[in-house]
Amino acid sequence: MTRSLRELFRPASIALVGATDKSGWSLSTFDNLRNHLFAGKVYLVNPRTEVVHGEPAHRSLSAIGEPVDLVYVMVPTTAVLSVLREGAELGIRNYVVLTAGFGETGPAGKRLEDEVVAFATEHGLTVLGPNGNGYINAAGSTTPYGLPIPAPLLSGPVGVVLQSGALASSVLAFAQARNVGLSLLTSMGNEAMVSVTDVMSYLVDDPDTSVIALFLESVRHPEEFARVCRRAARAGKPVVALKIGTSALASNTAQAHTGALVGDDRVIDAAFRRLGVVRVHSLEDLIITAGLFAEVRRVGGPRLGVVTPSGGASEIIADRAEQEGLELPAFAPETVDRLEAIVPDFATVQNPLDVTGYVVVDRTLLGRALEVVADDPGIDAVLLLNDLPRVTPADPSVTLTVAGATAERIRRARVPVVVVSNVLADITEFGRYVQGQTGFPYVAGGIEHGMTAIGNVVRWSANVVTEPPGSLSPLPVAAVPGEVWAEHRAARFLAGHGIPVVPAEQAADEAEAVAAAGRFGYPVVLKAAAEGLGHKSDLGGVRLDLTGPDDVRAAHREVIGALSAHGITGAATLVQPQRRGGVELLVGVVRDPAWGLTLAVGLGGVWVEVLRDSALRLLPVTPDDVRGALAELRGHGLLTGARGTRPADLRRLSEVIASIGDLALRLGPGLAALEVNPLLVNGPEVEALDALITWSWGHHRRRGPSKGRGGWWVVVEETRGMGAGPE
Amino acid sequence: MTRSLRELFRPASIALVGATDKSGWSLSTFDNLRNHLFAGKVYLVNPRTEVVHGEPAHRSLSAIGEPVDLVYVMVPTTAVLSVLREGAELGIRNYVVLTAGFGETGPAGKRLEDEVVAFATEHGLTVLGPNGNGYINAAGSTTPYGLPIPAPLLSGPVGVVLQSGALASSVLAFAQARNVGLSLLTSMGNEAMVSVTDVMSYLVDDPDTSVIALFLESVRHPEEFARVCRRAARAGKPVVALKIGTSALASNTAQAHTGALVGDDRVIDAAFRRLGVVRVHSLEDLIITAGLFAEVRRVGGPRLGVVTPSGGASEIIADRAEQEGLELPAFAPETVDRLEAIVPDFATVQNPLDVTGYVVVDRTLLGRALEVVADDPGIDAVLLLNDLPRVTPADPSVTLTVAGATAERIRRARVPVVVVSNVLADITEFGRYVQGQTGFPYVAGGIEHGMTAIGNVVRWSANVVTEPPGSLSPLPVAAVPGEVWAEHRAARFLAGHGIPVVPAEQAADEAEAVAAAGRFGYPVVLKAAAEGLGHKSDLGGVRLDLTGPDDVRAAHREVIGALSAHGITGAATLVQPQRRGGVELLVGVVRDPAWGLTLAVGLGGVWVEVLRDSALRLLPVTPDDVRGALAELRGHGLLTGARGTRPADLRRLSEVIASIGDLALRLGPGLAALEVNPLLVNGPEVEALDALITWSWGHHRRRGPSKGRGGWWVVVEETRGMGAGPE
Repeated sequence: MTRSLRELFRPASIALVGATDKSGWSLSTFDNLRNHLFAGKVYLVNPRTEVVHGEPAHRSLSAIGEPVDLVYVMVPTTAVLSVLREGAELGIRNYVVLTAGFGETGPAGKRLEDEVVAFATEHGLTVLGPNGNGYINAAGSTTPYGLPIPAPLLSGPVGVVLQSGALASSVLAFAQARNVGLSLLTSMGNEAMVSVTDVMSYLVDDPDTSVIALFLESVRHPEEFARVCRRAARAGKPVVALKIGTSALASNTAQAHTGALVGDDRVIDAAFRRLGVVRVHSLEDLIITAGLFAEVRRVGGPRLGVVTPSGGASEIIADRAEQEGLELPAFAPETVDRLEAIVPDFATVQNPLDVTGYVVVDRTLLGRALEVVADDPGIDAVLLLNDLPRVTPADPSVTLTVAGATAERIRRARVPVVVVSNVLADITEFGRYVQGQTGFPYVAGGIEHGMTAIGNVVRWSANVVTEPPGSLSPLPVAAVPGEVWAEHRAARFLAGHGIPVVPAEQAADEAEAVAAAGRFGYPVVLKAAAEGLGHKSDLGGVRLDLTGPDDVRAAHREVIGALSAHGITGAATLVQPQRRGGVELLVGVVRDPAWGLTLAVGLGGVWVEVLRDSALRLLPVTPDDVRGALAELRGHGLLTGARGTRPADLRRLSEVIASIGDLALRLGPGLAALEVNPLLVNGPEVEALDALITWSWGHHRRRGPSKGRGGWWVVVEETRGMGAGPE
Repeated sequence: MTRSLRELFRPASIALVGATDKSGWSLSTFDNLRNHLFAGKVYLVNPRTEVVHGEPAHRSLSAIGEPVDLVYVMVPTTAVLSVLREGAELGIRNYVVLTAGFGETGPAGKRLEDEVVAFATEHGLTVLGPNGNGYINAAGSTTPYGLPIPAPLLSGPVGVVLQSGALASSVLAFAQARNVGLSLLTSMGNEAMVSVTDVMSYLVDDPDTSVIALFLESVRHPEEFARVCRRAARAGKPVVALKIGTSALASNTAQAHTGALVGDDRVIDAAFRRLGVVRVHSLEDLIITAGLFAEVRRVGGPRLGVVTPSGGASEIIADRAEQEGLELPAFAPETVDRLEAIVPDFATVQNPLDVTGYVVVDRTLLGRALEVVADDPGIDAVLLLNDLPRVTPADPSVTLTVAGATAERIRRARVPVVVVSNVLADITEFGRYVQGQTGFPYVAGGIEHGMTAIGNVVRWSANVVTEPPGSLSPLPVAAVPGEVWAEHRAARFLAGHGIPVVPAEQAADEAEAVAAAGRFGYPVVLKAAAEGLGHKSDLGGVRLDLTGPDDVRAAHREVIGALSAHGITGAATLVQPQRRGGVELLVGVVRDPAWGLTLAVGLGGVWVEVLRDSALRLLPVTPDDVRGALAELRGHGLLTGARGTRPADLRRLSEVIASIGDLALRLGPGLAALEVNPLLVNGPEVEALDALITWSWGHHRRRGPSKGRGGWWVVVEETRGMGAGPE
């Protein structure tokens, strides 16, 4: 596909079919190609007019009589296929279809779209769209794009792919306002043939592109998306994405608490983290962050030296740095000495540094302070607060000299220097001129969004994108589709595969229960044990704190009775030693239909049930991944000794949780969900107290919920995801 | 002061003393007055030069020989006072002091500043600054301001007050970029004489100002601030504030858990909420929100109808609306019918509405859809996504016609219409021209910040600013300064003043303890009871679950023993019935040195200790205020029946908590902190299980911590705050 796209995006000649003075799209496309200096030939095709946009028109593609590399299609919906037919006969391989009325309108439109795709596939054509505005190849001055492109069109290293037509123009305008140059901007339309991941893949290989910016309504091909993101990571090209909307988890395994925790949007977060995709939450951040990546790419750590001419701005920066997890370490003594020799007496030398309004008198002050701070051995990057001028001054030479000197200091700096403006106002024409003349670097727009961008770059720089799993050996299991393994069976299974589980003995009657309790020593716990039985405590199926044989006998009787009352007969009970103290966790694995097996960890009880305090990761996970996830929990303090709890052995705990994840992966596509709840940690001891394994209904897609055993809803959609293991 | 400020901000003539070609400040001030059309006379004063800035200079104020209303002072620090002396003799009453080197530099500078203030006070002068850039009275074309003011200076209803010099210019530039006009912008400097609250008060009375925007590093005079905010609320003028930085709570009552919960920043949140001040978190939001207030002032509720030409933008808006607590209700059937007659067939009629890119063909589409949606009876406001054009088109008349028609529809709309642009890029000169020509309303800059602004306006519109308390009768209490009333005494006190408290009996020995337990019935709780004793459980001073006389005897022995081991002798114990079930809350009142008594509510145990899950309100509170605070808690679900808990009687609970607040207020300035922890709620039953009252060390300010009784640190700063009750 990448080779085809190279042709699509770099045509030597373009025909606009359906060109007409009556269409704003036609006029814009034609104007764009002319105004932004497309070097090749442009042919206008309209069977009914001699002149379009003041140029002679051709009656058809065939009538052009010269080679055409790309056709930009603006004809009515039903005529699109005939244009492709005519083009294919002429050997034209590349098409941008602006025309709407296809798959986006419903089944009838979808059939038309399918016909177009089938024809294109059969004849080796490449079709972008339909229902898309086209693309802007700024690096190649090729702009078959149906909405106005205001001048100047800035060429640069940011490649933009959008699942939106209207927003493409906003992104374009905003990039221009930030003086961020684009390599290629593509408005995808319906992605009937060329998909977001195809264009991303092209951009990974495109030498003009160093950063990829995405506007996504949905990730349509998670596996391809994962593959191309990993390729981008290997190529050192950051992917920044604004992903909007939510689509509910199709895989709703109601027996696992985990199901409710795994909102689709949080799985996207987990997937993006795994793939090194930087998620942003506004169009402004999309471009401001991408622009910063284009400038500095990587930052070695979170320690920021801050140089400003303003105390107020310094405090805003300090507040924002804390939110972004950035550090403002104290300057080294030598730095302090050197700064004190530079700044006015009434300035306070500290990080963040306010060199004061004396910059009005000494315009070199900020640049000289920057030079000193950049030398500080304790920082990973410098934030220089420096607005570009908005209006042309009477004498621009002073401005150019000062900006040039600062630019030179930034180039020579030991660490990356990020220039941030106070507020997010446009870089004006004069500002662009200053940057162009002096090599003054990218200016992140405003403290608010600039700090987000720095945080994004720092986090991306520290993130290691791992390759997909491949080494876990499959573990064949004889499970009936849709089956639920409740505690006694699930726990035995886990214990048999290396997961520490609390000991348990099954008891058929009161005497067996008392005997088991005697072996464990009191107090003990007694639970119902029946095939396919889910939330036992809801059925009155759990008895705690049994301190003697009488307790055990009574409990056995009550539990069996409670089950009978719910129509469950022939049940046994399970006796376990009662554990005291420690912290309970929930460890759940569910299969996301798009992204595959997903691990959720949380603190048990109210923590997950009321607070939804959980952290998600795609499987597989390393113990380090797990540790990171645990550290995200709001109740993390309970694991490190808050309130006098015994500090958990986080290393041991993380290893156990990672091994639960590995076991789930080894179970292959038959596994729907695996939940350990609670997993008890008490200092160095880690032990599963209860578990539940839910098997999928098989590889056939089921629509709607289906009543499983024991009165529980079990619905599983089986889709291979990126983390689905070595299938 | 307001009368003085009217003179200060509206001079008929201005003298620049210390004017010199060598100073950028001097040049800027002079240029500003000339370029922005100051109508009065400007005199340049410099004893050593004949010509300054190309104009003849005067040797001194006296040498001017004509009336001067305002002196802009740029002389060296030590010469400032002599300028005031000369001016005072000439009867000049108003001064802006740009000169730095005063209080901001240390004690020596502070002495100079005090001299200036003393002289000014004595002679009835008004001094803005020192160490400030001056002000910009855009409404009056009066701009004695020391940094460049780029043209055009836009006059409008937003008054800006900044505790920052450098940021004033950024705010000014950003307001211009948003086409937001200012009435007055003041850079406060050291506030030696004229304070932020003085200028705010002026703006409340200023007919040119309808919104007040603040940049605050600290609230220096909380009581005055509260008063002027209440005045602004009564005048219907919103106050929007960017408050940065944090300063630790000076009142650190370590015996109350509450102390740790009340970060200064959260008290500011509580105070702003009480006073109706809209807190924003970026410079962009400061101006964008203020600009929206200037346009729509009030919105009747949170239900938004959204009209856009873009599906992608609609989804971003939907995501952001959820975050801002705004609702996008389904359109009424009639609205749907009318919209279906307007939008293209392939559009989906829903809220948010995407009328589709067909706006390129039919430029009236968006406006017509807006008209329909504004009629929907189920919405409180319309969000219209509509960018202003950035570049002048070949034929501006079409643009003007379309914008004019939309503007007219907005004027006629039943509900407020908020126009939002896709991204935060400048409103260009042509955009301003369109707004000026057509009356096209304010455009909130970008979906991200625009949604914040709408959320702010909706919240402000719903907020009721209450008047300060005045009706609670003081309750004289004989407390020794610094004293701590532990449970038995605090609880008795609370019970004696209408707060429901768990019954308790004091026991001097084992026999008394057993007798008390017998009266209550088992199980019981036994606790240490000693004067000034704080966290009992830390000392092993609490025994729970005592099920019989032997338990009680042993517990009494152990508790007394544990206290002896800590050197506490002569202690008694306290016997109480043991409560089971329910939810424990913490209700704490602490005295903030700035804002007075502050109430914190939280769920007990891990909720406050690990999560810091609490909500703050300034006292007094109504039961409704308390209910709002409880609803903010992350664990709020535990009060409404999550996890099978008994739903709390929230009305009863809120009444009890409000009455705890009232009691604290009645105790007057001697109270340092009052904590009920836990307050147990179990369905309709609400009962304090434990309490602690800490009395202040008196009205003298104490520096640093001081060792209180029983080994606890008790530090209290006594300052009258706005919520300090009817003293």
